[in-house]
Amino acid sequence: MEVNLLQHSSLEVCAHAIRTCWQSFDKSDDGGEKDKDLINRVGNKFKHASTLEHLTYTFYISGVSRALLQELARHRMASPSVKSTRYTLKELKDEDSFTDGMSMLELKQKYTNPSEVYADTHMKRASKYLVFTQVLGVDFASVVALENLRLMLIDGVANDKAKYCLPESYKTELTWTINARSLQNFISLRSGKSALWEIQDLANLLYNSLPKDHQYLFDDCIQKD
Amino acid sequence: MEVNLLQHSSLEVCAHAIRTCWQSFDKSDDGGEKDKDLINRVGNKFKHASTLEHLTYTFYISGVSRALLQELARHRMASPSVKSTRYTLKELKDEDSFTDGMSMLELKQKYTNPSEVYADTHMKRASKYLVFTQVLGVDFASVVALENLRLMLIDGVANDKAKYCLPESYKTELTWTINARSLQNFISLRSGKSALWEIQDLANLLYNSLPKDHQYLFDDCIQKD
Amino acid sequence: MEVNLLQHSSLEVCAHAIRTCWQSFDKSDDGGEKDKDLINRVGNKFKHASTLEHLTYTFYISGVSRALLQELARHRMASPSVKSTRYTLKELKDEDSFTDGMSMLELKQKYTNPSEVYADTHMKRASKYLVFTQVLGVDFASVVALENLRLMLIDGVANDKAKYCLPESYKTELTWTINARSLQNFISLRSGKSALWEIQDLANLLYNSLPKDHQYLFDDCIQKD
Amino acid sequence: MEVNLLQHSSLEVCAHAIRTCWQSFDKSDDGGEKDKDLINRVGNKFKHASTLEHLTYTFYISGVSRALLQELARHRMASPSVKSTRYTLKELKDEDSFTDGMSMLELKQKYTNPSEVYADTHMKRASKYLVFTQVLGVDFASVVALENLRLMLIDGVANDKAKYCLPESYKTELTWTINARSLQNFISLRSGKSALWEIQDLANLLYNSLPKDHQYLFDDCIQKD
Repeated sequence: MEVNLLQHSSLEVCAHAIRTCWQSFDKSDDGGEKDKDLINRVGNKFKHASTLEHLTYTFYISGVSRALLQELARHRMASPSVKSTRYTLKELKDEDSFTDGMSMLELKQKYTNPSEVYADTHMKRASKYLVFTQVLGVDFASVVALENLRLMLIDGVANDKAKYCLPESYKTELTWTINARSLQNFISLRSGKSALWEIQDLANLLYNSLPKDHQYLFDDCIQKD
Repeated sequence: MEVNLLQHSSLEVCAHAIRTCWQSFDKSDDGGEKDKDLINRVGNKFKHASTLEHLTYTFYISGVSRALLQELARHRMASPSVKSTRYTLKELKDEDSFTDGMSMLELKQKYTNPSEVYADTHMKRASKYLVFTQVLGVDFASVVALENLRLMLIDGVANDKAKYCLPESYKTELTWTINARSLQNFISLRSGKSALWEIQDLANLLYNSLPKDHQYLFDDCIQKD
Repeated sequence: MEVNLLQHSSLEVCAHAIRTCWQSFDKSDDGGEKDKDLINRVGNKFKHASTLEHLTYTFYISGVSRALLQELARHRMASPSVKSTRYTLKELKDEDSFTDGMSMLELKQKYTNPSEVYADTHMKRASKYLVFTQVLGVDFASVVALENLRLMLIDGVANDKAKYCLPESYKTELTWTINARSLQNFISLRSGKSALWEIQDLANLLYNSLPKDHQYLFDDCIQKD
Repeated sequence: MEVNLLQHSSLEVCAHAIRTCWQSFDKSDDGGEKDKDLINRVGNKFKHASTLEHLTYTFYISGVSRALLQELARHRMASPSVKSTRYTLKELKDEDSFTDGMSMLELKQKYTNPSEVYADTHMKRASKYLVFTQVLGVDFASVVALENLRLMLIDGVANDKAKYCLPESYKTELTWTINARSLQNFISLRSGKSALWEIQDLANLLYNSLPKDHQYLFDDCIQKD
């Protein structure tokens, strides 16, 4: 999983938006400590949360599963543009076999030592397309599904049919624009232990990818167990 | 795929909302032809589209794939409550084998005649969990994935890990509330030939599940090729 | 100020939506105590707030000022259809003078006793169009503004120009559809002492206009000072 | 009326978002003509409108009336932070009389020539607070309302009561963040002749305030009569 912040708006503009309400522009220190305190006080403590919507972030998120995407897409106050299986699945056609025809059970027997598994070239090639869970059976099942999908595409099956046997571990990537208010909600709900393990990682990585001087707005959202 | 309309609001209330703007309540015919014309004229022709938001529909949608769910969730002006794989995957544990250990290729060879395939009891049991595409290879690949998932669950793997090898053909169901404005957008974008085949069916079925006297608001949205 | 609930969706459907996630339909008591507990637990305590969006309410709100409307319109997760000054201002043309040509200061001197003021026929006729604050000077100023507006309309000035001298105390009415999640936010922010006095009244009246068996979902939102 | 663009996101990032779907990053010309064509083709012609949401603009809008604000606030896919009458009304207390005690009718008789009116110092001072319509009666009525409001504030009436006699011509200002998709909707609906005259001006001024290389996305939205 990788997260890159492509663009973001400035604290100064957010502070300017808040100062609009009181016409207190002369008290600004151009995005400095006074402005930062103001944003936190009005946007968080006074619950005038719409002022945080002037802060928008565009992230590029890659190496996440389509299982995670199912959850991310439920955050409706955000704009996702996602790698489309309908258009890009053909990428698998040029790959060699990932399983040499073995079933999940046969793959389980192939390796005497779990540490060998993820070092194997077949598995390394598969990891370009799959998020692994570190549960061997699950990961072998994903690789078998990947191989079957590959065979379908080589057979000339259209993407719109072939994608039905895609495993949810299949990797996707997206450009995602979200404002600070909605991102607070995302991090609050998704950084805690009751969230799906992969999206917990994403929530933390998003936080870490923020500009350092923006992170204070999200400190209370991170659930530390 | 099945769609049931669980509740909906009334045309009369929508007409009342529009008449609020002009205070023309005395011209109402209580949701009759005059009110219906008014809704169409103001909401559609005059593009005062927010007036259509007073009409909300709650559907129960079942027998659709998680591939379709990926697309449906992108319609953000709607409220979905979805059968959760995190909570319900255990349902597979009580099933017998779907493949008797066969691989996709072996399943392909098992049947001499395509017409036998979907009549087979193994496949019938699998169809409770999977949306079939009628492309044999894809459907066998889904069944193999389903079987591997079943084995993982019997092995005691937690749902949050096991779900990573779930095929996107896996069936889900949801309660979905959406207003008329957003539903117009959904039907417009998803009923045309360039949309995914399964969601084309859903767009048409949603239209057919509407109260008969509401359908006229969506007639121009249905793309007939 | 008057609030009428025109339509609402049912607790049963909301509970059904929640039970979709766990497929626990067999535990429902058809909108009874078990279902009500479930909605509160999942929607409020577990913060799965989107489940509350299946509950929508359509209110008819009348006798509120356009000052209040300025604030109400900031609640963007709702659908307002509002009496339009652009279309309805002509209603004033048929009225007699509200001031007999007196200025605010002259009106102040006309009455020796505040208790007479709102009993006066001129003021009673004006109260059809204005929300009074019970601050005499402000209310007289509104009446003078109303009278000047009336004169403009009699002079044949177009509504789109005349409305610029409309006082914000001018009464409006609207049909307003909002879901339970957004209404919780509204009542939380607007029922407290720091909110505008008129919108505090509205927040309380909306609460009181809810079906009795729905109110428990909003009990914690009402700020009691 | 004045509009300043405080910040905006880049076409390059929007093109990057679109290229995510096809993974066609190698075809980008870094926000050049190829990328611009792509945005127009996908966002507008193919109606994949959510891709336009990666483009956000923050404007500072000043010198507009609260009548206009009533309409602007109905565009709910946007984030307004507005100069608050609840906090800033005291600004009027330090002003001298705007009317020398004259009524609207007396003001009408004071000037023999319309051209003198707006050159008068009283009116010039008032124009700091009021949007004038160029209909003399309406503008005098606004000035009388402004004067009465001033007197109330000098009397020590609280802003939350005094604001009820505020005329809708009263000037406000706001910081407004909106994405390109919602701004297209705004300009489409508000630049045409059937819109309020003042908001027509705003729609055109917003368009003119956009970065020159962004304007092509909105060309078809401007209604030229």
